Amino acid sequence: MGKKIKVGLIGAGRIGRMHAENINAHFGDVELKAIADIYAEKIKDWAYGICVNHVYEDYKKIIEDPEIDAVLICSSTDTHCQLIIESAKAGKQIFCEKPIDFDLDRIKKALEEVRRAGVKLQIGFQRRFDPHFRKAKKLIDEGRIGDIHIIRITSRDPEPPPIEYVKVSGGIFLDMTIHDFDMARFLSGSEVEEVFAYGAVMIDQAIGEVGDIDTAVVNLKFKNGAIAVIDNSRKAVYGYDQRVEVFGSQGCLRVENVSSSNVVMSTSEGIISDKPKHFFIERYHDAYIKELREFFDSIINDEEPSVTGRDGLEPVIIGLAAQKSLEEGRPVRIER
Amino acid sequence: MGKKIKVGLIGAGRIGRMHAENINAHFGDVELKAIADIYAEKIKDWAYGICVNHVYEDYKKIIEDPEIDAVLICSSTDTHCQLIIESAKAGKQIFCEKPIDFDLDRIKKALEEVRRAGVKLQIGFQRRFDPHFRKAKKLIDEGRIGDIHIIRITSRDPEPPPIEYVKVSGGIFLDMTIHDFDMARFLSGSEVEEVFAYGAVMIDQAIGEVGDIDTAVVNLKFKNGAIAVIDNSRKAVYGYDQRVEVFGSQGCLRVENVSSSNVVMSTSEGIISDKPKHFFIERYHDAYIKELREFFDSIINDEEPSVTGRDGLEPVIIGLAAQKSLEEGRPVRIER
Amino acid sequence: MGKKIKVGLIGAGRIGRMHAENINAHFGDVELKAIADIYAEKIKDWAYGICVNHVYEDYKKIIEDPEIDAVLICSSTDTHCQLIIESAKAGKQIFCEKPIDFDLDRIKKALEEVRRAGVKLQIGFQRRFDPHFRKAKKLIDEGRIGDIHIIRITSRDPEPPPIEYVKVSGGIFLDMTIHDFDMARFLSGSEVEEVFAYGAVMIDQAIGEVGDIDTAVVNLKFKNGAIAVIDNSRKAVYGYDQRVEVFGSQGCLRVENVSSSNVVMSTSEGIISDKPKHFFIERYHDAYIKELREFFDSIINDEEPSVTGRDGLEPVIIGLAAQKSLEEGRPVRIER
Amino acid sequence: MGKKIKVGLIGAGRIGRMHAENINAHFGDVELKAIADIYAEKIKDWAYGICVNHVYEDYKKIIEDPEIDAVLICSSTDTHCQLIIESAKAGKQIFCEKPIDFDLDRIKKALEEVRRAGVKLQIGFQRRFDPHFRKAKKLIDEGRIGDIHIIRITSRDPEPPPIEYVKVSGGIFLDMTIHDFDMARFLSGSEVEEVFAYGAVMIDQAIGEVGDIDTAVVNLKFKNGAIAVIDNSRKAVYGYDQRVEVFGSQGCLRVENVSSSNVVMSTSEGIISDKPKHFFIERYHDAYIKELREFFDSIINDEEPSVTGRDGLEPVIIGLAAQKSLEEGRPVRIER
Repeated sequence: MGKKIKVGLIGAGRIGRMHAENINAHFGDVELKAIADIYAEKIKDWAYGICVNHVYEDYKKIIEDPEIDAVLICSSTDTHCQLIIESAKAGKQIFCEKPIDFDLDRIKKALEEVRRAGVKLQIGFQRRFDPHFRKAKKLIDEGRIGDIHIIRITSRDPEPPPIEYVKVSGGIFLDMTIHDFDMARFLSGSEVEEVFAYGAVMIDQAIGEVGDIDTAVVNLKFKNGAIAVIDNSRKAVYGYDQRVEVFGSQGCLRVENVSSSNVVMSTSEGIISDKPKHFFIERYHDAYIKELREFFDSIINDEEPSVTGRDGLEPVIIGLAAQKSLEEGRPVRIER
Repeated sequence: MGKKIKVGLIGAGRIGRMHAENINAHFGDVELKAIADIYAEKIKDWAYGICVNHVYEDYKKIIEDPEIDAVLICSSTDTHCQLIIESAKAGKQIFCEKPIDFDLDRIKKALEEVRRAGVKLQIGFQRRFDPHFRKAKKLIDEGRIGDIHIIRITSRDPEPPPIEYVKVSGGIFLDMTIHDFDMARFLSGSEVEEVFAYGAVMIDQAIGEVGDIDTAVVNLKFKNGAIAVIDNSRKAVYGYDQRVEVFGSQGCLRVENVSSSNVVMSTSEGIISDKPKHFFIERYHDAYIKELREFFDSIINDEEPSVTGRDGLEPVIIGLAAQKSLEEGRPVRIER
Repeated sequence: MGKKIKVGLIGAGRIGRMHAENINAHFGDVELKAIADIYAEKIKDWAYGICVNHVYEDYKKIIEDPEIDAVLICSSTDTHCQLIIESAKAGKQIFCEKPIDFDLDRIKKALEEVRRAGVKLQIGFQRRFDPHFRKAKKLIDEGRIGDIHIIRITSRDPEPPPIEYVKVSGGIFLDMTIHDFDMARFLSGSEVEEVFAYGAVMIDQAIGEVGDIDTAVVNLKFKNGAIAVIDNSRKAVYGYDQRVEVFGSQGCLRVENVSSSNVVMSTSEGIISDKPKHFFIERYHDAYIKELREFFDSIINDEEPSVTGRDGLEPVIIGLAAQKSLEEGRPVRIER
Repeated sequence: MGKKIKVGLIGAGRIGRMHAENINAHFGDVELKAIADIYAEKIKDWAYGICVNHVYEDYKKIIEDPEIDAVLICSSTDTHCQLIIESAKAGKQIFCEKPIDFDLDRIKKALEEVRRAGVKLQIGFQRRFDPHFRKAKKLIDEGRIGDIHIIRITSRDPEPPPIEYVKVSGGIFLDMTIHDFDMARFLSGSEVEEVFAYGAVMIDQAIGEVGDIDTAVVNLKFKNGAIAVIDNSRKAVYGYDQRVEVFGSQGCLRVENVSSSNVVMSTSEGIISDKPKHFFIERYHDAYIKELREFFDSIINDEEPSVTGRDGLEPVIIGLAAQKSLEEGRPVRIER
């Protein structure tokens, strides 16, 4: 076995910590050398428990460490572009959580720095690595359902995020639907030309009061002719609903929910199956591992990551167009 | 048992013949006295076989027969309004296949005659009588899923109709989607305020050449806030796809396809289930019987039919708005 | 269309009445001329309502009517053999409900009379005509799952019959499991060589007090090597459970329950599907129609019925062996 | 965090290696200090790769290492009893793969040594830790399906093991069905009183030539009245089939197969779902982790392991009775 890849993680909230634990549990060829977090004191216990050598308050110690090959950016969205640029300039390979940013110009500038530095950048759209969606993609690519006509994506959360989070989330389209925009691009293999969105506050007026919506239906027209329909809700009482259907000239693929168990109970009340796995950490457990595995493999094999900077940019473009469509009550063409 | 209801049937094509056979097989209290069809000679064999007394070429013999209580109008769409008006003036109870007409003014005039004559008029939206959709409606009405947020309707035919039919069908929205508009109204219990439609020719260029489309996605905004999304295709290679999903504040209802059998075969190729029942005659067999049963019961009990003239009018209004939306590339408000 | 087949029905309890109504509703080429029932007065209302010409107390009026082509025997089991013999001697075609009798010698004597008279005899194992089981049989016959290794049959009633019925039913093996013995023979295409049965009273002590059991597991060894396992219960709180699985060298077939609707409701409690169709009248509605259709077709085409006298005899042989196995606590060889 | 539990692993074939990798990946509080294997040279590469400190040829180095708290016995069955006895005498906590042995006296002697030494012994029936079966067990224990009447277990391998393995496997009942005997005990919460087995060679004559069978149906009668039926095959062409059904007075639980993906493809051929996960390593991945977790927790908390020595003994008793039943063609009472 060759030298281990040395990694620094910036931002160790829920998602950052999950990545850290996955590296420790699953990747014998990767060493998580350091974590930087503004609440460094709070995370030391678990961080040292999984053999991290250094816990810093200042992320620059990671970027300036010449031993560190790759940086995982899991801090808040407003810091992403700055961290990408600094990491790129330091020659680090970069994994960055979604969304890159809410501002197209800032994103483009960051991607430009990445290009100039010749480093890799993978964006954290983990659903592409989910074995179920990946199987669907494989069948599509093999031509098993022919040309794609209609894509339907259902994405509903079990409960709304805290209102403090909603305020800074960038709105439902950039926070939640962005995954579905990515999934639609991934499955269709084409680019969006036009967006039409309906949306409303149906669940919690507080969400409306901070200027967001909690229920949405978004239509996408793709360059290759396919039409996608996404429906979102911030609250499905039966749990995290993550389904995809792709209808084509030769057949139809459905990706059904993953249940928390395969037990079916028949009683005088009916035939009762288990609810979907609770939320994204459980539902996409395997996917989160696989996305990092592919990131590290792209470094080892010096290949393009499978979710590129452009894959990070496009869903933001679509999300902003959806927002405009909602506000103006009309379909919005994507200008690139 | 009291006196039998005496019925005359006008137009004995595929759907008319099916109604005739259903009356003979299932309704001991109804007598199909006469059938009128412009190809009277061709239908005599089977008509006399199911105990019909008279087969006419001229429908007026039915309308003028004082013994006949009710008329079933199953002739081509362009004849519906005229036949409704003549039947109403003759004091007959009326069952009429969908759509009533493609022209709103003609429909309104016919409904006005029905109102004036004080006769009953039921429109042939048979899906409302399907036991599966009806069960869903019952659960909604009982409040089991709370307030309705999103309705998703998938309606895909196994194969396109003959091009000669497409030419006179009124277009996909008035011929095919009209059932889905009705279903959306039925399930939501509300009226459509705005329509947005995407559509394209993806299956057969010949359909495009006669000015129609074969693939469509239609969004509906309802007065009560619900949003509906309908997707249609003229050709699903796996068969007649008829699914509905209603998502609400307290749960979600799905009506799945009805399979042609419950046999599941596991082989080295995979786990293989049967395809949906082939097409509307098989899929809605029970529904067609139940819709006539309710029509006759509404006569016996002197009650309002469960699918009224207005229920016949509204989907045409929505269909024309969808057509306008498609042509103008913008959402269209419904004006009433 | 040729002359109608004229039919007389003997015994118009629940199952007899169902057959009468099915003939009226579905078979234009069959005339139910007369019904005989010891409670003739009670049934006249509905019988005349479905166009039956004669309602007799004395069944001999049917057997002696030279116009009547076929007799349907739906009276109590103890009368079957006598009625078969009289009908055969009168040259009638015979349909007889299951079981023919509880006594092998009496059955053999009746079958001998049928043979001598050269009339047809079909036994009422309606499950063979169920479209789901028939599809499974077709796939087996096409070799889709190769050689049969294991057959599993689950057959559970929604609730026990009245205790008065249990007393005269012949015991669970001859009353209930007899259908499963027939199904096992039908699917395996082979004959049973050995039987081993476990059984107990688990549901209602009253059943035990009249000498019967309410729960059973029966193993069958077939001449072709296949092994079948049947499990029975007189009470499944979730409804009528009718499943079959056939495992072979090239695959496995499952026939799943038929739900009373295809509606799936997702709530905070779980994902809830509908229970199976309530009981045999609903579950095997289509099968009951098809079995009579095939009986009449075998008359019209002068062919062997698809469920013969021997098919009526064998399950009784197996049932008596199962009873012996239960009593003696050992596997019992079938001697023929 | 306290001191890590130090573990030695004896026997690093497929299952031993899997446990080693699971310890490394998932248990921060456990250190796999040493592995002993007669092919020590062959395993060094991967062993050192997962941070094992010592790789020995001689297992005694593990037993004699005073630092080692617990021993995992994953060597061939014939060595289990000897290793249990030596480990117990050395005061080690013991995890041992199934079956303990094929000889009841040897097993009892080993269990006696464990008892005398006061160490823990957990047997490797991993299916009890599978989240699906565990959920079923939980629902049973909560009384959700009332009293248990019938248990059905289907356990079919995707392909037979190599014939060399079959020769030393102890026969299908002690090698394969033993898991199902354990599952039946686990779910019923009762002990087996009588066994009746049917079996045959249907798949591969070579299996018969070495004195084993490849297809079996086993009936179990439990002290609490429940009846269990197990069916086994060494070759299911559609993959590893692992289903359980528990029928009780208040309902029925089914544990369905776990698919390799949730993708459903509808084509002109049918509706095609994915096959079950390939074999036990994939299917019981989570279960294998959980069983070790519970073993280590029982050490940490000084509690009885959840699968005890007696749980290891009983299925061997049942398996030997099944073998006798098969040979003598009669039900066999369990004498304890």
